[in-house]
Amino acid sequence: MNEYAIYHRPESEYAYALDENTLRIILRVAAGENFSRAELLYNNKYDFTKSRSHTEMHLVSTDGLFDYYGTDIKLTDVRFAYIFKLYEKTDSGDTGDKIYYYSEAGLSETYDFVLAYYTFFQFPFINQSDVVKRLSWTDSAVFYQIFVDRFSRGDHGKYDGYITQEWNEIPTARCFAGGDLKGIISKLDYLAETGINALYLTPVFCADSNHKYNIKNYTVVDPQFGNNDDLRCLLTQAHDRNMRVMLDAVFNHCDMSHEFFCDAVNYGAASQYREYFLTDGDRPDFEKGNYAYFADCKYMPKWNTSNKKVREYLINIAVEYIKSGFDGLRLDVADEVSHTMWRELRKAVKTVNPDALLIGEVWHENTHYLRGDEFDGVMNYRVHKVLIDHFGVRAVSAEEAANRLNGILMQNYEQVNGMMLNFLDNHDTPRFLRLAGGNTDLVLSALVALIMLPGIPCIFYGTEFPMDGGSDPDCRRTFDWTFETRDEIYFSYYKSALALKRLRSVQSGGYSVYAVGDLLVIERRTVGETVKAYFNRSGAPCDVPAVGETVYARHYADGILGTFGAVVMRERGGRA
Amino acid sequence: MNEYAIYHRPESEYAYALDENTLRIILRVAAGENFSRAELLYNNKYDFTKSRSHTEMHLVSTDGLFDYYGTDIKLTDVRFAYIFKLYEKTDSGDTGDKIYYYSEAGLSETYDFVLAYYTFFQFPFINQSDVVKRLSWTDSAVFYQIFVDRFSRGDHGKYDGYITQEWNEIPTARCFAGGDLKGIISKLDYLAETGINALYLTPVFCADSNHKYNIKNYTVVDPQFGNNDDLRCLLTQAHDRNMRVMLDAVFNHCDMSHEFFCDAVNYGAASQYREYFLTDGDRPDFEKGNYAYFADCKYMPKWNTSNKKVREYLINIAVEYIKSGFDGLRLDVADEVSHTMWRELRKAVKTVNPDALLIGEVWHENTHYLRGDEFDGVMNYRVHKVLIDHFGVRAVSAEEAANRLNGILMQNYEQVNGMMLNFLDNHDTPRFLRLAGGNTDLVLSALVALIMLPGIPCIFYGTEFPMDGGSDPDCRRTFDWTFETRDEIYFSYYKSALALKRLRSVQSGGYSVYAVGDLLVIERRTVGETVKAYFNRSGAPCDVPAVGETVYARHYADGILGTFGAVVMRERGGRA
Repeated sequence: MNEYAIYHRPESEYAYALDENTLRIILRVAAGENFSRAELLYNNKYDFTKSRSHTEMHLVSTDGLFDYYGTDIKLTDVRFAYIFKLYEKTDSGDTGDKIYYYSEAGLSETYDFVLAYYTFFQFPFINQSDVVKRLSWTDSAVFYQIFVDRFSRGDHGKYDGYITQEWNEIPTARCFAGGDLKGIISKLDYLAETGINALYLTPVFCADSNHKYNIKNYTVVDPQFGNNDDLRCLLTQAHDRNMRVMLDAVFNHCDMSHEFFCDAVNYGAASQYREYFLTDGDRPDFEKGNYAYFADCKYMPKWNTSNKKVREYLINIAVEYIKSGFDGLRLDVADEVSHTMWRELRKAVKTVNPDALLIGEVWHENTHYLRGDEFDGVMNYRVHKVLIDHFGVRAVSAEEAANRLNGILMQNYEQVNGMMLNFLDNHDTPRFLRLAGGNTDLVLSALVALIMLPGIPCIFYGTEFPMDGGSDPDCRRTFDWTFETRDEIYFSYYKSALALKRLRSVQSGGYSVYAVGDLLVIERRTVGETVKAYFNRSGAPCDVPAVGETVYARHYADGILGTFGAVVMRERGGRA
Repeated sequence: MNEYAIYHRPESEYAYALDENTLRIILRVAAGENFSRAELLYNNKYDFTKSRSHTEMHLVSTDGLFDYYGTDIKLTDVRFAYIFKLYEKTDSGDTGDKIYYYSEAGLSETYDFVLAYYTFFQFPFINQSDVVKRLSWTDSAVFYQIFVDRFSRGDHGKYDGYITQEWNEIPTARCFAGGDLKGIISKLDYLAETGINALYLTPVFCADSNHKYNIKNYTVVDPQFGNNDDLRCLLTQAHDRNMRVMLDAVFNHCDMSHEFFCDAVNYGAASQYREYFLTDGDRPDFEKGNYAYFADCKYMPKWNTSNKKVREYLINIAVEYIKSGFDGLRLDVADEVSHTMWRELRKAVKTVNPDALLIGEVWHENTHYLRGDEFDGVMNYRVHKVLIDHFGVRAVSAEEAANRLNGILMQNYEQVNGMMLNFLDNHDTPRFLRLAGGNTDLVLSALVALIMLPGIPCIFYGTEFPMDGGSDPDCRRTFDWTFETRDEIYFSYYKSALALKRLRSVQSGGYSVYAVGDLLVIERRTVGETVKAYFNRSGAPCDVPAVGETVYARHYADGILGTFGAVVMRERGGRA
């Protein structure tokens, strides 16, 4: 047994409540450990020294380096104590298994049950208010991210002196194309027909840039995009189509023209807003750059979210967004904002609407945001990177892709995995088509994988063509409403891919990710239905061991999956 | 390189802020990895792909299975990205070191710095409100835990019909001996003289038991112990002696005679308090036991701390305790109460007094309570168990004790380690003397270790004799104010041991714990002072490699530490 590899920690991704009576218990061991049996010994914590029940742990996942054994256990007494008992197969069959115990005291060959209250693992109580709940509406959600200036212009009567770019012209960093909220409203039917049922809008409030991440007024819609009535209308029109709307909330920083920052600049130490920003000296000075700001952008001063008044100001804005009916917030640069702020914001927002979705922009390690007290999910850059590496730049094999996806999926609670915002690309990355060398079949494969994986798919506008583009600003091109650049065969597959999200198992079922030879397989299952997606990006046709009803097929015939093809099969029956 | 062992996770015990400009970075690897150099490569996250600085990581601790490399890094830009570069020594000297990189993508032999923004580790910003702060008064605190009914009787005029036990008689589970608050007040000078500067009182509010953990009224002092004026007087008298007072707050459960529970029992579904408890059915029924309660004690119904009104009720009580001047709360059965409650309680209590100490009773895995949003520290059962195993039942060697202590100390932030409530024994365990087979030298050794370790020592009343006793109720004997049972030689060493807490390095210095042969060594150091404690419980005299001024010595002479002896040496100078 590899003592370096074995790991478990209660109240973490290794032991958490699925609901008020069910615990999920996971044990990590070295990949390939050879157990004839892995058991969980358990009882209520007050009786554990006297007697224990036991249940078998099953291999549920592997990331190549580690295997994960798991079990879900229904409890009547939720004051739970447990240890693991592992039966390692030995070389000589007749000596039987070698027994190990694993507890808070580590790995051992014997275990003193009399003093177990010092060393058992425990999940001391499942308190309902601590249980992380998946928002049920997210199960079927397919988001569409709109970069507002580039999607659609609906208001042709507005002042358009700010527009510096012809529609369809390749964008530059500072150009304006004229997209607006009325434009989006006019395309809601189109979006609904393609299979979209939720929108994520990049910022819409007053800001002098095309992206509007440098907000100077958090409650007034930028006149370039329309007005607050247009925003209300967009929301109503979307809701009328059962379409949700998530706003981009930029609370890490504002624009240097924000009135509070101006006050701090003008009045220095005398300003009531001095402490709202992190300034070295009496007053912020643009030339000196003597204050905290976003990235290298001195025009975006960072809010001091350690300050209570700043938190109250921003949280009140968030609450107003939710009160006015928006279904969620995507929180920009969330990882540079204080945890204090996010805990308070969550509480305030969920009090207004427990179903409001909170998605943080966190590119890296995210578990400390996803324990139920801050975000529901984050922008899933880790999954995005695997999809790029496997389907885009094609640097990793099916096996390595499966291993990495499993590693990612083992890092968070199942409920949280279901609310991660998964994407192929967005306004901060090159278009997936570009990374895939222009190969639309690989975009489709990645898209099917995106839909099949646990989480909320979020599709960047134009993916239905698919739109090309390199890094920002090239990924922010205008939408071609002539549809002349749309690949119609691709488009029909695109819609079929999105439709997979209507399958019950794909919405909320269990999952397995693995490789069969060169094929990557993503399996989802619920009672009565198992759906398996096979992907071949190996460059040579592969046999597919699939049975059942074909619900999506690209380059698939007679059990052979062609180069860059993908096939999804549904079988009736199957375990949960 | 052992890939199973290497581990790092940002915003955990492996990467945390010591203050607003300083990060501590820890890398775990297999014990004995042979590096010629371990480096941290870092820059602000927006420039990391372009260039990096580097600094050396040093071996800071080992727990026998894993080695821990660490560095503290002062930052001007707190938006921190980093990876590790490891130079592994190879067998053949002329081929040089083998290079490894360790990032969020795992261990690799090469690293693509251009795409590093996908895979570097990050500590995205140090927000002041998220920094865990050590309460400075705890640095020098030496707590004394008083089980009120058994410590001292001061009021001889009170109704004493409830007293069922002669003072000095061996207690039974339900006996009453008559101790009270006036008794404690009368002994404050005695306690101060022995070196005590903080009190932890077991519960003092209305409850019909001798322990009073079954509270029926949270704000009225139990008449057996006195009245609220006595409690105020105790607090004033203690504060006049620069002595802090921590109350035992029992928020997991109450007594079945609590008015809210009675209301729920009497009015069932019609009671406004029905949801305050976790009842299966319309009303709680003692016979059926159809409600949640503590352990197997149906007379202690569990509060439903998922309920907002319950939290408001209990948190208001906590706030009143702190407002009336108490210096901290020890939170009973803290692990069965909702995290929601503790987060709200901390916020409310710290708003009233940021210096109030919050200690949770958590016997097991505790990191999820100790990230700055719930408790300052917990009752440190893990350290207690090592002290029992090494000095008490003598089951583990000096090396194993050092390994286990290091493992425990690596699990929490340094600031948190400084606020853990360390103890040899308490009202829920046998007396340490009993576990040490009556050997007072071993009690002294364990006591010196307790004082020397990072954390707040808490001494159970009577340890100055030392008092004997088995498991509850035998560990709750009455204090012998005749002092006839006090071992005077032991007592003078006891006071010397407590006095070690006055050394600056012992209060707030860095630490190392290791074995030298059979000797356990605990070292504390600050600029200008290094203090080393050596412990010999091996049964044979040992040479001590110590130099400096002797500040404590038991069974030590001429560089030889006798059986069951301990010596503490202070050297001037030394690194931080």
